[in-house]
Amino acid sequence: MNKLIFPIILLCIGCAENHKKSVAEEFQPFHPIKEVVLDSLNHPWSIAFISNNEALVSEKDGNLLSVNLSTKEKRTVKGFPSDLTDSIRAIHFGDNSGIFEVLVDPNFKKNKWVYISYAAKKDFGTTTKVVRAQLNNDSLINHETLIEAAPYTREYYHYGGGMTFGADDKLYVTIGERLFWERDEPPLPIAQDVTDKRGKIYRINPDGSIPDDNPDLGPNAIPGIYAMGIRAAQGITVQPDTNTIWFSEHGTIQGDEINILHPGANYGWPNVTSGKLRSSDYTPPKLEGVDFTPPVWFWQHTVAPTGLTFYTGTEFPQWKNNLIVPGLSRGSLWRFQIDNETIKSAEELFLDDRVRIRKARQSPDGKLYILTDEDNGKIIEIKKQYKL
Amino acid sequence: MNKLIFPIILLCIGCAENHKKSVAEEFQPFHPIKEVVLDSLNHPWSIAFISNNEALVSEKDGNLLSVNLSTKEKRTVKGFPSDLTDSIRAIHFGDNSGIFEVLVDPNFKKNKWVYISYAAKKDFGTTTKVVRAQLNNDSLINHETLIEAAPYTREYYHYGGGMTFGADDKLYVTIGERLFWERDEPPLPIAQDVTDKRGKIYRINPDGSIPDDNPDLGPNAIPGIYAMGIRAAQGITVQPDTNTIWFSEHGTIQGDEINILHPGANYGWPNVTSGKLRSSDYTPPKLEGVDFTPPVWFWQHTVAPTGLTFYTGTEFPQWKNNLIVPGLSRGSLWRFQIDNETIKSAEELFLDDRVRIRKARQSPDGKLYILTDEDNGKIIEIKKQYKL
Repeated sequence: MNKLIFPIILLCIGCAENHKKSVAEEFQPFHPIKEVVLDSLNHPWSIAFISNNEALVSEKDGNLLSVNLSTKEKRTVKGFPSDLTDSIRAIHFGDNSGIFEVLVDPNFKKNKWVYISYAAKKDFGTTTKVVRAQLNNDSLINHETLIEAAPYTREYYHYGGGMTFGADDKLYVTIGERLFWERDEPPLPIAQDVTDKRGKIYRINPDGSIPDDNPDLGPNAIPGIYAMGIRAAQGITVQPDTNTIWFSEHGTIQGDEINILHPGANYGWPNVTSGKLRSSDYTPPKLEGVDFTPPVWFWQHTVAPTGLTFYTGTEFPQWKNNLIVPGLSRGSLWRFQIDNETIKSAEELFLDDRVRIRKARQSPDGKLYILTDEDNGKIIEIKKQYKL
Repeated sequence: MNKLIFPIILLCIGCAENHKKSVAEEFQPFHPIKEVVLDSLNHPWSIAFISNNEALVSEKDGNLLSVNLSTKEKRTVKGFPSDLTDSIRAIHFGDNSGIFEVLVDPNFKKNKWVYISYAAKKDFGTTTKVVRAQLNNDSLINHETLIEAAPYTREYYHYGGGMTFGADDKLYVTIGERLFWERDEPPLPIAQDVTDKRGKIYRINPDGSIPDDNPDLGPNAIPGIYAMGIRAAQGITVQPDTNTIWFSEHGTIQGDEINILHPGANYGWPNVTSGKLRSSDYTPPKLEGVDFTPPVWFWQHTVAPTGLTFYTGTEFPQWKNNLIVPGLSRGSLWRFQIDNETIKSAEELFLDDRVRIRKARQSPDGKLYILTDEDNGKIIEIKKQYKL
């Protein structure tokens, strides 16, 4: 009889031990820490995962790269559109131009489509452009232009260029209003004018055609406009479970915001803002009968929030479905706990270790990465260190 | 044989289940929620626990109370010093006077000493006063004055009045500098003058005598001064493990701070501040050879941080040894993760449920309470709700 009882007891102890590991370690209090996975990137703006370790990385002031986070291999993708602006940063300090978002098609494995937003040049001006092309052995082929946010102007600011696929497989794109000073606004401000392509958020089909169920913004509206009143939104992402789309907006002075995207909504720029206008001599025109949608969050100091993402990985179960928002200004990283569309708490991380961050992204296997906006730009994985 | 094996298996399953409960529930992700434990308090300022449920509560605009959080019983403690200012709030809006901190002696069970700070009046002025008395059947007896921060003035602001016992069993007391406008400063600003009692942090023995090992601030310094350059510090508390003392400081405009207390340190008011001075026409005198100690944290917007406390309870193991800081201004509650003297992250809680909070305190059995600064003031326990 002993022979039989003994192994059963052992087996049960083993179960408890396993259980202890899985539950205790999973939820244990921790400090987030940073681990550099890849460096020597020229102001990386975006990362699109093809597998857990393979990805496309856009360098704002460099190239589109094909990288392997495991082998550390980096290869330049050939065939990038030739109308990419030269790196004007050297001549014009504070220039925002370059390569912005890179996305792969939800069905990339089959169709190889890659979506890119960047600052395109023509004559003496630039504008935000969105193209798609198919990736073939590290080369882009079969290019198609999806959005060309003309006019081409000599303002090198606020291109926007944030992109995400919705749960509806539509492509959502932010296009900035491109002005530095509000005093340069036309009588009807750019972002308030549905006949102007700039200062809007678009919703288009992956081939650039316009979905039938887009909001009706009038007969003269630019096709594809989904929302308006945008200044310089760069981050846009989809909330898990609810499929709600959230985006970040750069304000002027203390006007940095997080917004929820609603069809046909007007986010107010430059008529209403959470901050102060840069041009103190500018008064926006009075717009009759216009409803403005307020942000769900705004900071009372400058953050310059950019490529936000919802966290759905397993490394930090305490952060499940939290919104992670990087900031350029002081190099901050924020974590918001959210219940549906209500922000319950806001945590600023890495207060003793700041660095300009352009983007937060998650790999298919749930690892959380941030991209630093530096000459020696880095892809950093957020890991955890258990507290003592 | 079956008869014997069966109960053994059940026993082991039971173990695993128990284990699951203790570990999983303890660390599971949660939303903090509020549960009102006691209400109808007149702007409660402070709570001093005598047991897990019995406590003394000071009402800023009311009385010193003896309360039972379990039976909800409230009794007014008799024998409060008769020089307490009348509630001037009714005549003078924004008046800060009233009853401030209440503490019980570390050895209260034996000696019954209670320590109280409050705004005392004399002639036509008021000042911050610290007294102790013994609690005898809901009455204070054997009063002793420990600090009387004369002069008595007609400025009804910035009394300070924060108190804590250090791990060394000394009493630490914050005394504000009492001015509203910096332009009213004398040539050597009040908080920079060691011969002026105001704008200082004191370290005294519980009987009011001066410890031998206090810092030497010169032959003319007021006895008991431990640190200077203080404007309106109200919160002061001891960090677990390290025994470091942390205190909050009200700034003017964007100058709200958290500081670590060092012997003899000068926190700079009004010569240096994280914010802006209220009197734009005031320039502090140049002080030669004076070192100012910077804050470990400051906000870039107004928070009005007050009665902070370190959390050491068991309800939220994720918050272990975190610093909890309530704010009056917008009604915020902050949680700081701290590694020794480095702030690692800062989280703002209850963003969708703001209320002016004067104090955060923990009961002996580790429950976390906050006191709301309202006409119908409340003692609220922070509990947790597991996330779905």
